[in-house]
Amino acid sequence: MKIAVLGTGVVGQTLAAKLADLGHTVVVGTRDPEAARSRTEPDRYGRPGLGAWLADHAEVTLATLTEAAVASDVIFNATSGDASVAAVTAAGVDNLADKVLVDVSNPLDMSHGFPPQLFVKDTDSLAEQLQRAAPRAKVVKTLNTMNASIMVDPGQVGAGDHTVFMSGDDADAKSIVAELLRSFGWLDILDLGDLSTARGPELYLGFWVRLLPVTGGHGAFNIKIVR
Amino acid sequence: MKIAVLGTGVVGQTLAAKLADLGHTVVVGTRDPEAARSRTEPDRYGRPGLGAWLADHAEVTLATLTEAAVASDVIFNATSGDASVAAVTAAGVDNLADKVLVDVSNPLDMSHGFPPQLFVKDTDSLAEQLQRAAPRAKVVKTLNTMNASIMVDPGQVGAGDHTVFMSGDDADAKSIVAELLRSFGWLDILDLGDLSTARGPELYLGFWVRLLPVTGGHGAFNIKIVR
Repeated sequence: MKIAVLGTGVVGQTLAAKLADLGHTVVVGTRDPEAARSRTEPDRYGRPGLGAWLADHAEVTLATLTEAAVASDVIFNATSGDASVAAVTAAGVDNLADKVLVDVSNPLDMSHGFPPQLFVKDTDSLAEQLQRAAPRAKVVKTLNTMNASIMVDPGQVGAGDHTVFMSGDDADAKSIVAELLRSFGWLDILDLGDLSTARGPELYLGFWVRLLPVTGGHGAFNIKIVR
Repeated sequence: MKIAVLGTGVVGQTLAAKLADLGHTVVVGTRDPEAARSRTEPDRYGRPGLGAWLADHAEVTLATLTEAAVASDVIFNATSGDASVAAVTAAGVDNLADKVLVDVSNPLDMSHGFPPQLFVKDTDSLAEQLQRAAPRAKVVKTLNTMNASIMVDPGQVGAGDHTVFMSGDDADAKSIVAELLRSFGWLDILDLGDLSTARGPELYLGFWVRLLPVTGGHGAFNIKIVR
């Protein structure tokens, strides 16, 4: 498939690399590609700057948000939550029409320190905000409940015996996303229902940030729905 | 131990019956014992009225909130979330001093229909509200993340291989609560830290109510932290 990944952070890089490994045509979209490409120094976590990362991932293209959306049939939103509506809007609402918009972001407000608070709570969700910003996109919320590494490699904890969630209004879009999730290695994909159910896994992030310090601090955990 | 259970609903009944089965001296506290005892008709879910339930559980005493607190060393708050601060206050702040107050309630606002919203979100928690109402009590939040049946019988799903959480400021109180949880059958008891961490499992209820319809509708599920 032709897949765009909006966002150049660790989530965007991880998703883009995995999707390219799986044989998809992957373009990463960012506001200013040349500025992003010029970042070659490691970041504060020691991860390579995007320029260095791109040099190691020659199969991934870098483009503007608009170019990435135009080129692709499935678009992942992997921007930070507080920039997501702006990023999707910049990609071009018409460029997202009838396409699958996979939202993996979280409405985290880091301005109060750790743990972050949520800037959208149970009366709305970031996924629904994106749907309102791009009404003709087929928004599917998924993968926002674990760190980037586990998103694309669930087998690294508990032999993959844990759960990923999916919310969205379009059944065909959810089928496409479920197929991608299976290709990542996900075994237990739980369809929560329409897009408003994304409020559940987004609220859960307020729990995830408190589980983080008591599970080793590196996010190497996920939840399994035992039923 | 001498244990009070504040609240006569299904959570209170279930906890009281289990604690009595385990050999504890159990008193159920309610605002108006005589009115509660007079309810012998089944409720809208077909569960016996409290009077009928008490006739079947002769080992459990019914008393006022104050009497229950005075008589006990460990007090469970199993009242509905919106009545919890009032119930704990009615039990008498001095009667709770230096005692373990186990809060299993949730800040559910049912006034908007299903799914309920939360009336306290990630800037506070109901557990912290109770601690402020009863500053000398040793509040421990636990058991608010599953239905009453699983609280006291975790083995009924996944052979008990799932997780219960605990938050509180007093290490000795948490040891007492952990021992009670083990006696219920809990194998994986995760201490989240101080009482403010209760914001996490309370927020999770906004996810739980959306998991409920896609897991059979009866609450026969729980989460396991896979790490």
